[in-house]
Amino acid sequence: MKAEIIAVGTELLLGQIVNTNAQYISQQLALVGVDVFYHTVVGDNAKRIQQTIETARDRSDLLIFTGGLGPTMDDLTKDVLAEMLGRKMTYDEPAMAKMTEMFAGRGIHMVESNKRQAHVIDGADVLQNSTGLAVGNVLQHNGTTYVLLPGPPREMKPMLDNEAIPWLQRRQVIDQSSLYTRMLKFAGIGESGLENALLDLIEQQTDTTIATYAKEGEVLVRLAVKGTDRTEAELKLDQVEREIRTRLGLHLYATEDLPLPEVLVKQLTQYGLTLSAAESCTGGMFADTITAIPGSSHVFAGGAVTYSNEMKERILGVPHELLEGEHAPGAVSEQTAKAMVEGMQDIADTDFTVAITGVAGPDHSERKPVGLVYIAIAEKGKEVVVEELRLNGDREGIRRRTVYAIMYRLWRRLQERSVHNAM
Amino acid sequence: MKAEIIAVGTELLLGQIVNTNAQYISQQLALVGVDVFYHTVVGDNAKRIQQTIETARDRSDLLIFTGGLGPTMDDLTKDVLAEMLGRKMTYDEPAMAKMTEMFAGRGIHMVESNKRQAHVIDGADVLQNSTGLAVGNVLQHNGTTYVLLPGPPREMKPMLDNEAIPWLQRRQVIDQSSLYTRMLKFAGIGESGLENALLDLIEQQTDTTIATYAKEGEVLVRLAVKGTDRTEAELKLDQVEREIRTRLGLHLYATEDLPLPEVLVKQLTQYGLTLSAAESCTGGMFADTITAIPGSSHVFAGGAVTYSNEMKERILGVPHELLEGEHAPGAVSEQTAKAMVEGMQDIADTDFTVAITGVAGPDHSERKPVGLVYIAIAEKGKEVVVEELRLNGDREGIRRRTVYAIMYRLWRRLQERSVHNAM
Repeated sequence: MKAEIIAVGTELLLGQIVNTNAQYISQQLALVGVDVFYHTVVGDNAKRIQQTIETARDRSDLLIFTGGLGPTMDDLTKDVLAEMLGRKMTYDEPAMAKMTEMFAGRGIHMVESNKRQAHVIDGADVLQNSTGLAVGNVLQHNGTTYVLLPGPPREMKPMLDNEAIPWLQRRQVIDQSSLYTRMLKFAGIGESGLENALLDLIEQQTDTTIATYAKEGEVLVRLAVKGTDRTEAELKLDQVEREIRTRLGLHLYATEDLPLPEVLVKQLTQYGLTLSAAESCTGGMFADTITAIPGSSHVFAGGAVTYSNEMKERILGVPHELLEGEHAPGAVSEQTAKAMVEGMQDIADTDFTVAITGVAGPDHSERKPVGLVYIAIAEKGKEVVVEELRLNGDREGIRRRTVYAIMYRLWRRLQERSVHNAM
Repeated sequence: MKAEIIAVGTELLLGQIVNTNAQYISQQLALVGVDVFYHTVVGDNAKRIQQTIETARDRSDLLIFTGGLGPTMDDLTKDVLAEMLGRKMTYDEPAMAKMTEMFAGRGIHMVESNKRQAHVIDGADVLQNSTGLAVGNVLQHNGTTYVLLPGPPREMKPMLDNEAIPWLQRRQVIDQSSLYTRMLKFAGIGESGLENALLDLIEQQTDTTIATYAKEGEVLVRLAVKGTDRTEAELKLDQVEREIRTRLGLHLYATEDLPLPEVLVKQLTQYGLTLSAAESCTGGMFADTITAIPGSSHVFAGGAVTYSNEMKERILGVPHELLEGEHAPGAVSEQTAKAMVEGMQDIADTDFTVAITGVAGPDHSERKPVGLVYIAIAEKGKEVVVEELRLNGDREGIRRRTVYAIMYRLWRRLQERSVHNAM
């Protein structure tokens, strides 16, 4: 099985966007044991798309296309392939109905060209688009399998994972021998600290491979073992996970690729606990990150973004003497963080309340250095804890690391709670 | 002149890294008027590299390679090309001397294979590597120009800009004419609406090309004209921009590639105006998006994330009767949006105050549909305006479109202000 990923879009050839789709598809195909031999990018030009397909089907068995499924005149992928295979196109009824409903709901006229997004090549199966309008197509012809996916990553990814790969497995285009993987996700520790703690395991790895990846605020370890028997593979993964857990269990917050905010919201929901936040330098990022998760309304009451000193006083009741004056500790101080969290707790009356104040940069403030951040956590029936962080990075990085630092501490408190409950 | 960019490296096909080199080279070539027709990625395999070169030289005149110039056994680009052209390789003396000195300076033994990095194909010119060890090669053969660059971006970029492109210009492989471009950015209008309004211009485009691209909440139009004279090119761009402006001026918020939030913060700063926000369904995203921009502390006082009804009452003073009860309009209503914005305005006393309440999904709430959002804008000395939006998309998309919808309306108000000031 030789796979080739073909991205269609002049914007890629002009360098306006980078071909992250090819990376994602390559990663996902590697997980199901498919070898990718080529990536190709071609512009929105019928003749060159056709030549690209001719070249690709001579050297590869599975062609995965991204892009060119939209409504405009330069979206050509389906048209060119249908023409080459001598097939007509019809409209997918469910996709048409969804589109008509969507436009009607928004009370706007549906431009005729939008229908193109519902096109299906005769004999192709439809891949539904859960996050957009253009449907995908998958078909087989003369020993070649063609998979047509949309270009926008947020449409392409779910269609690949939930529609295309299962289709290929059902039809046995790709085989069942798989790479069994497990994601271990860590917070509150950096990539080098983590790699150091696992160095001997990484060096001795035999049939289970161990790889680390850093993301902003979290680190990911990917365990992988190849095989045909799931039980056997899972046993091997269990064994390595157990060893890693004895070393780094306090940081291991998930055994699948879940972001920390999602795990936190899930656990707060399980315990029936509520949360509120008072933010200064993170400017709403904590609240935004939490509320991005569906169902967060059950746990997150809300918060205040008290960016200016006046807002800290007016909403949270932070004493003016703390904020201004020659000998005042200032907005970025342990005292202000404590006053903020107490003020927010009074208003929201939630089980947990957090407060954040610091200097995200690029300029320092109150003569305090960029990266100095105070975080405060209040828990009902417990003393307020304030912690000073000194973070590296640019404005965005400092804000994000602050948000993750608080989330990690909240997660730790929930772990301690579960240990107490179990005893 | 048809150019093709060929990246050599199995790590790309495994999805371990993303092909940012292709993007960078495309951008740089566009600036010197070279059209890139294809990107290709091939693994570290001699036979497939050879086939890729055969395909590429049949369809392109200028082949730019990245990767495969390093010291290891799977760095094959120079070897394969030399073999195909029936040429031998020698060592570049300056590169050898630099390498020897470097290893001696670090007091480590130079492994023999390192010499491979100094390889020059007979008849090729050397492209020196100012940030690494592997030299580039450039040569012409049977009407095809081959440029071999290293894979690491920090080595590839200076070699392309300072060595390869000047070489191509000196040898007149590429001409002196450049591509002059202009970005026009639009908000408050979708891609298809925009394309519709410009359809005749797009269809009639001759020497100035017009292309549209959609991003979440904003649309981008790129004008491009090829020429040797900057003044002449700018005049042509001005003319097309003027025509577009008469049709869509109300949506055109920038003539360079700036995000709407940045333009808004810049303009508020210029006018010395302040802003605050009360958010429900966007959960802090508005505040987060504004405060992500350096300098936003001069204009953004802060806000409240009143996710629960209690918080709407406690922080903003929204009347209980509006929120709950059999005949109450509910949290997602025009009345609540108005009460939220008025409550926030009382606290923050800023020039502009906005409020957002709606259903971001995935589940409906208060029996109101996903995508129903009320936005309110209060401006000092003016009546509060509340608007109902019906948005499409997933939770993230609805939240983001809401944030951009408000930012667009604020931007519009600032334009009206500037017109009034000018009169």
